[in-house]
Amino acid sequence: MKKLAAILYPDFELLDLYGPLEMFGTLKDEIEILTVAEATGPVRSYQGPATIADFDFETVPECNLLLLPGGLGTIPQLSNESLLNYLRRSAETAEHVMSVCSGSALLAKAGLLDGKRATSNKMFFSLATTQSAQVDWVEAARWVVDGRFVTSSGVSAGTDMALGVIADLFGNDQAEQVAAYTEYQWHRDADTDPFVQYLNQAPELSAG
Amino acid sequence: MKKLAAILYPDFELLDLYGPLEMFGTLKDEIEILTVAEATGPVRSYQGPATIADFDFETVPECNLLLLPGGLGTIPQLSNESLLNYLRRSAETAEHVMSVCSGSALLAKAGLLDGKRATSNKMFFSLATTQSAQVDWVEAARWVVDGRFVTSSGVSAGTDMALGVIADLFGNDQAEQVAAYTEYQWHRDADTDPFVQYLNQAPELSAG
Repeated sequence: MKKLAAILYPDFELLDLYGPLEMFGTLKDEIEILTVAEATGPVRSYQGPATIADFDFETVPECNLLLLPGGLGTIPQLSNESLLNYLRRSAETAEHVMSVCSGSALLAKAGLLDGKRATSNKMFFSLATTQSAQVDWVEAARWVVDGRFVTSSGVSAGTDMALGVIADLFGNDQAEQVAAYTEYQWHRDADTDPFVQYLNQAPELSAG
Repeated sequence: MKKLAAILYPDFELLDLYGPLEMFGTLKDEIEILTVAEATGPVRSYQGPATIADFDFETVPECNLLLLPGGLGTIPQLSNESLLNYLRRSAETAEHVMSVCSGSALLAKAGLLDGKRATSNKMFFSLATTQSAQVDWVEAARWVVDGRFVTSSGVSAGTDMALGVIADLFGNDQAEQVAAYTEYQWHRDADTDPFVQYLNQAPELSAG
């Protein structure tokens, strides 16, 4: 049984977290999900709903898998040494350290991606790249694997990455079963990025 | 500002809820998400993580949009009159009543789909169809719109449905912006179902 630490902070992006957790959590006999944050209790997402952190950074057990979401809440966390230290400490022993969207900005800030290939979400790509010049930032990728570190592009790309990691851990047939069960049209090719044309473009999200 | 009631119950399927909430919640200036359950406080998903219900069925205000997830937790809720009555009451005034996966079994049990076209998830399709013979159950559909009622197929189909409803409410350009922002490869065609070959097939999810 593998333990997965789902790392929460205020204003995290909902689907960055829950797309991958759906895929990993469907394998309930293989993977146990632990929610962890700086303090136990409710952590509110950017979109509104709050998730309970069952553990804090001191009490959470050592985990095989780490999942770090992104979102607008990333920005204040870039100066949160408590979070950055937990990332450094837990990454030492994890089999897979995964980030979604601007979560890779936090991994870069923690120095964990130096000398490695990594990616981030398209529209705020520079948020990640400005955290460290020692990272080989890949602009056009759905997700990037470099050893134990797996970084994905924006939001929904994390779900594709999760299935890629499941294939790596349990075999491709199992990943295909999870995709079929969740009726998810898996984008299987990590190197093809359908959204690279949005690189560093400010989004327009007003319906007015 | 439209209010969306995200309806929780124990063992709900994570992505049934959070795929659509990502899409609706990205339009923060247009849509406010309210989490509601039989009692306020934490509601644990089938996959493990718990979400806070901010309202119960008595205190939640009237909402424009209802979102009802499915999952294995659906089964005990089929005999929960408190939930079924909330569905009947809130559906009277809602502009859009949306279900994902086996959530449509609950809408059918509440009698809300009688005389209407509807769909459900593929692998447990009969769970929905056995709740009412008065529904025109559509086997091959990503999602089905019949007036104010919008039912989707399994798990990830709810995300596609949510973008369809956003297009209906705010225009297609806005739905495309949300899909681009969330780097989501939107399956735009409600009538094409890539998973219909799994109809009533028991899934195999052991990695052993």
